[in-house]
Amino acid sequence: MSKFIPKKEDRFTFGLWTVGNPGRDPFGLPVREGFSPVEAVHMLAELGAYGVNFHDNDLVPIDATPAERDRIVSEFRRALEETGLKVPMATVSLFTDPIFKDGGFTSNDPRVRAYAIQKTMQAMDLGKEFGAETFVLWGGREGSEVDAGKDAVEATKRYREAINFLCEYSISQNYGYKFALEAKPNEPRADIYMPTTGAMLGLISTLDHPELVGVNPEVAHERMAGLNFYHAVAQALDAGKLFHIDLNDQKMGRFDQDLRFGSDGIKEAFFLVKLLEDYNYQGMLHFDAHALRTEDRQGVIEFAKGNMKTYLILKEKVKQFNEDKEIQALLQEIQGKKLDLPGFDFKFSADSLKALKGYEIDRAAVGAEGINYERLDQLTIEILLGVR
Amino acid sequence: MSKFIPKKEDRFTFGLWTVGNPGRDPFGLPVREGFSPVEAVHMLAELGAYGVNFHDNDLVPIDATPAERDRIVSEFRRALEETGLKVPMATVSLFTDPIFKDGGFTSNDPRVRAYAIQKTMQAMDLGKEFGAETFVLWGGREGSEVDAGKDAVEATKRYREAINFLCEYSISQNYGYKFALEAKPNEPRADIYMPTTGAMLGLISTLDHPELVGVNPEVAHERMAGLNFYHAVAQALDAGKLFHIDLNDQKMGRFDQDLRFGSDGIKEAFFLVKLLEDYNYQGMLHFDAHALRTEDRQGVIEFAKGNMKTYLILKEKVKQFNEDKEIQALLQEIQGKKLDLPGFDFKFSADSLKALKGYEIDRAAVGAEGINYERLDQLTIEILLGVR
Amino acid sequence: MSKFIPKKEDRFTFGLWTVGNPGRDPFGLPVREGFSPVEAVHMLAELGAYGVNFHDNDLVPIDATPAERDRIVSEFRRALEETGLKVPMATVSLFTDPIFKDGGFTSNDPRVRAYAIQKTMQAMDLGKEFGAETFVLWGGREGSEVDAGKDAVEATKRYREAINFLCEYSISQNYGYKFALEAKPNEPRADIYMPTTGAMLGLISTLDHPELVGVNPEVAHERMAGLNFYHAVAQALDAGKLFHIDLNDQKMGRFDQDLRFGSDGIKEAFFLVKLLEDYNYQGMLHFDAHALRTEDRQGVIEFAKGNMKTYLILKEKVKQFNEDKEIQALLQEIQGKKLDLPGFDFKFSADSLKALKGYEIDRAAVGAEGINYERLDQLTIEILLGVR
Amino acid sequence: MSKFIPKKEDRFTFGLWTVGNPGRDPFGLPVREGFSPVEAVHMLAELGAYGVNFHDNDLVPIDATPAERDRIVSEFRRALEETGLKVPMATVSLFTDPIFKDGGFTSNDPRVRAYAIQKTMQAMDLGKEFGAETFVLWGGREGSEVDAGKDAVEATKRYREAINFLCEYSISQNYGYKFALEAKPNEPRADIYMPTTGAMLGLISTLDHPELVGVNPEVAHERMAGLNFYHAVAQALDAGKLFHIDLNDQKMGRFDQDLRFGSDGIKEAFFLVKLLEDYNYQGMLHFDAHALRTEDRQGVIEFAKGNMKTYLILKEKVKQFNEDKEIQALLQEIQGKKLDLPGFDFKFSADSLKALKGYEIDRAAVGAEGINYERLDQLTIEILLGVR
Repeated sequence: MSKFIPKKEDRFTFGLWTVGNPGRDPFGLPVREGFSPVEAVHMLAELGAYGVNFHDNDLVPIDATPAERDRIVSEFRRALEETGLKVPMATVSLFTDPIFKDGGFTSNDPRVRAYAIQKTMQAMDLGKEFGAETFVLWGGREGSEVDAGKDAVEATKRYREAINFLCEYSISQNYGYKFALEAKPNEPRADIYMPTTGAMLGLISTLDHPELVGVNPEVAHERMAGLNFYHAVAQALDAGKLFHIDLNDQKMGRFDQDLRFGSDGIKEAFFLVKLLEDYNYQGMLHFDAHALRTEDRQGVIEFAKGNMKTYLILKEKVKQFNEDKEIQALLQEIQGKKLDLPGFDFKFSADSLKALKGYEIDRAAVGAEGINYERLDQLTIEILLGVR
Repeated sequence: MSKFIPKKEDRFTFGLWTVGNPGRDPFGLPVREGFSPVEAVHMLAELGAYGVNFHDNDLVPIDATPAERDRIVSEFRRALEETGLKVPMATVSLFTDPIFKDGGFTSNDPRVRAYAIQKTMQAMDLGKEFGAETFVLWGGREGSEVDAGKDAVEATKRYREAINFLCEYSISQNYGYKFALEAKPNEPRADIYMPTTGAMLGLISTLDHPELVGVNPEVAHERMAGLNFYHAVAQALDAGKLFHIDLNDQKMGRFDQDLRFGSDGIKEAFFLVKLLEDYNYQGMLHFDAHALRTEDRQGVIEFAKGNMKTYLILKEKVKQFNEDKEIQALLQEIQGKKLDLPGFDFKFSADSLKALKGYEIDRAAVGAEGINYERLDQLTIEILLGVR
Repeated sequence: MSKFIPKKEDRFTFGLWTVGNPGRDPFGLPVREGFSPVEAVHMLAELGAYGVNFHDNDLVPIDATPAERDRIVSEFRRALEETGLKVPMATVSLFTDPIFKDGGFTSNDPRVRAYAIQKTMQAMDLGKEFGAETFVLWGGREGSEVDAGKDAVEATKRYREAINFLCEYSISQNYGYKFALEAKPNEPRADIYMPTTGAMLGLISTLDHPELVGVNPEVAHERMAGLNFYHAVAQALDAGKLFHIDLNDQKMGRFDQDLRFGSDGIKEAFFLVKLLEDYNYQGMLHFDAHALRTEDRQGVIEFAKGNMKTYLILKEKVKQFNEDKEIQALLQEIQGKKLDLPGFDFKFSADSLKALKGYEIDRAAVGAEGINYERLDQLTIEILLGVR
Repeated sequence: MSKFIPKKEDRFTFGLWTVGNPGRDPFGLPVREGFSPVEAVHMLAELGAYGVNFHDNDLVPIDATPAERDRIVSEFRRALEETGLKVPMATVSLFTDPIFKDGGFTSNDPRVRAYAIQKTMQAMDLGKEFGAETFVLWGGREGSEVDAGKDAVEATKRYREAINFLCEYSISQNYGYKFALEAKPNEPRADIYMPTTGAMLGLISTLDHPELVGVNPEVAHERMAGLNFYHAVAQALDAGKLFHIDLNDQKMGRFDQDLRFGSDGIKEAFFLVKLLEDYNYQGMLHFDAHALRTEDRQGVIEFAKGNMKTYLILKEKVKQFNEDKEIQALLQEIQGKKLDLPGFDFKFSADSLKALKGYEIDRAAVGAEGINYERLDQLTIEILLGVR
């Protein structure tokens, strides 16, 4: 089993807010003391993680004095140095404080919009103090309940305006940040703007500096909308926009659960790991989850270990799948069909067009061919269940 | 009530497949004879529609001989001429025939991919015979049940390749088509690629000719994923990509219902109409719905009338909303907040940055201000219910 | 418009927790001071409500000393007396305190189960001090995330055991309570046991005193699962089990929103009101919602008013629907079909059976008859939109 | 691997409609010739199934002449005799024919209601010819799109009336049937009455012969509503009402997929198998699924095998879970908590009440105890993935 023990080179990271989560929910009080930033660093280092990430106020409370900030920063830096843990990503809370109750970048109130940009710049400064290279923007409150009150076209413009400003800020400071936009369909708002990873890709194409901006897809967020997360990440990969990823789990069609990675959608988690490994994704593998509210601090440690272990088990299964002779032969049969149409290569040209115009297919015959996906899927299930 | 009677200038269109629908469903046989293309043209013209749209095989059966094709085309043309109805949009069926069972453009089988492109070119030719200016692509089978068998990154590349080819084809033929991509999250596939309008916007940004390609959002399709349709259309509008729209209705989170427009999500339909009218959308208002299976042919007529009438009623309510003094005063209060920060204008510059860095907000005071959305929303409901 | 002003006889009630809600959510801090119990009583009385309801700890904090309890109770009683407001329902919080993190009645820990029953008895005592006649049980934490750890059959037995105990307690104290069980599919648990009103009806049939126990359906809770609330309430009504009702609203398939009544599912709200009015429901009309987090205290008042006003508007529309000649004629046509089969009356007997065995229907002819639901539905929409 | 080969004693059954499915869907034509009843019997017998089940019209077309019926019945009987396959369950199609477009038992039209009961009696007769002991009722069209047109209370009464009649019919004929009611939330109707297994349990309690009637829960149907299927079955088991079960799979919150058992919700399938095995369920294990539309007849065979094999693999994992020492120790810790309260035993009595009233719990201490579900869940995942 030693192969399932995480190592630095696995690039596993956790948010301070994940192991720091005290187990409050909308109907219940906190149940445990979460791990403080310094405690989190030590605990995660011990478990084999590569790094920790934070929202500005995970580390420095919003009302901290400069002296408090300095003390916190220096204690946190010491913990990082002692453990070798990195801070590859930073982000900003534009959702906790009441001022953001109708959003930050998209608020109708220009005072709030200005403050949101200012706060984000400060969070970028803070991240840079710890060497963060990726800056995540999750617009959790950029949305609405009352569409009568907030023009969604206007909101889109404001969203873009803010990101454009922040890109320029990063350039002006030589920060070299890659921004990663994180979509979510709803909660805490009835509907959040740019609700899917796809919508974020659409938004990016309208920015002043699209090259600086990619996405941070989160398992739970696509699954809340019942969407196939593997497909969403594949689109981002294809577009060269997979700058970061949030691993966790979720039952479809309900409140945001942030479950331990691989604990619900086992098959979908497998295809995700397969995608990341087959396409040699080199970014961080960030767990954005939290222990169940039934857990005490020991349970938080079990939770943290479980995330990483399950990833490693699935990675091993990807290898097994890729080396399974029967599966590979079946895939060859399924994916190896040939087209016999000289001159046509799916790129447009006069010749290619001419060839395609003359193409005659035996529609009935090809339509009657079975594709053998049931067999392939069953073999996949057997790989997953460990009986092959 | 005469103001709710549709006229040509309202730009209402219907698909041949909508009033032609015979009422089959996965568990039941057809219940009625749908309107034939010629019958549909006459019936819709009488009701005040502007045009009809079609899939290639709605008009010309896939196995029609050239002679049959000619006869069908000429009868259909005569009906259009007699009634003055237009064909503003055409599309292609890449889903009915068994050959497309694993998709058209994204099939693993290059024979199928070639055929899908060829068939689409022919549908474009057919559309042009009737003057269609918009070509819709709905990739209803571009998806999967067995992700082990179809690489989603590869599928994305194939999707792009096909659209690129078709754009070049349109250019080469001087067709001048605008392509409108229509997203759907699932059904008939477990998961369809590019499942949301947002995802389509992301895909468009990776095409060779993004300027030729926009989206065709459909109410039911976004609602199947529980998403806010008004938000999706607003993003498309903002990006200049709202090339067409499919109006219908749908209960969230279930099978594709294609209900009469405005028959379920009344409030969301209102915001959609408000968006289209306020932003002066000039495209077609296309109904992609069908009568309930409980209906006979008379019921199909009632259904067709209802779609248009409800749009006109909601359009009237938009006017009322925009002229309601109390609502407008409330909106002014909600949206008219001022930022007093000389030099800062949300555009990045040295001065703007400097101003923003020095910004001091009274976070507690602004955070404590109520936004009055409950009142605004209640007034909206009262407009909708006709009691103001 | 004076007809839309609430009066005592409308039987509108609110939970203390609804107008007391301070606007905290999983991602954000409180935004306002909620109305205290005494403030709530005065505010609601002024608006025309009939009563207020409470969880034990809405009124008396869980750690209150006996002296504090006495003071609170007496102040609250005074407010009720001054305003004439009633307390028709009481309930118990088995979800806020960390001790209930794995449920109360269904916890694996018998210490917790005993405490949950004890706490509920005390809440029943408290409710009786104010004359409550209905006792609601919402088992919000009776569920699981980890089905490996909690046997769902065993949980069902424990649930029943607790309710049986409480029924006996009510009998023993001559409390005369009617218990109303409130279902919810998920949140705060991944899955809550007895997730629908239907499941609660099933559970009731296995109790020792089914006659004492009914249901308290909540709009938002059925809609979270995408179910038709009107259907759920109809089943409860049919079974004689509609002991209470929670009015609010909710977008389908997402987190629990507790929106203002009638603010999202307008059509479904109409059918609900129609059901309650047509079947002469005499219980309380309880609003279990809260103002949006964007609101201050004035917004809470607007919210409270909106709930009641929309109910009254819909009630007026029910009257209009029931008196609309075209609609009633159409309904007569739809619902007035006759069966000509002497001897058969849908009750089993030798004669009835014999008649039915000889029945010959013209299947094709009856199958081809249109039912005219599209027309009826359009008329309903027009009633709702106020254009008839 | 020989342990995963199905045998008669495993009690696996398939519907004729499952392997007979030709692969039509709402957007596409049939793709294959399904297995005819006689072919299905031979194929399934060879694979190790125990039996086949049918709707009346799966076997005998609705328009068959008496002579055709006789021939079909006798050929089918011969196939059963040759193979030893049983027919443990029969059911009736009240959904395919246009006459049922607004339901059978709940139709507004008494002619249709009478015919539906008559047709069901004939299906019961047919089932008895083959020794069926369970009769399933799936009211797939008992629902609505237009709630204005069909009173849901009235519909409930009609539903009950029909079932009561059929129970009496079974008694009168000494058929000894157990009826099993199958719930589904929607599709083909917008909303189906009694949408969940729980709702059916509620309905049963209002019948004249509740003892004859239980439920037939289907994996896909509860998952369409995002509900926990294991919980639903547990409630049915607790009530003594699990008369039959439909095994398949489904992605949550979308159209009815009828996927191969265990192919999507692996973890939930495991808990289901665990429930059935731990509680020694002795009924049939019926697969109500169909091969993907991508498959030819060979794919249908792979599909059939996969269902049974996955069940057997999961059954083996249940054994492993139940014998895993670490898991069992953890469960003992989680579930073995003790209550030290002499005289109190969760049954009501004067003594028990007195004891409970005096109970003092250390709320903070018990509330702070961690429950260790994360660890347990991770171990479960590792059992499922085959790495323990």
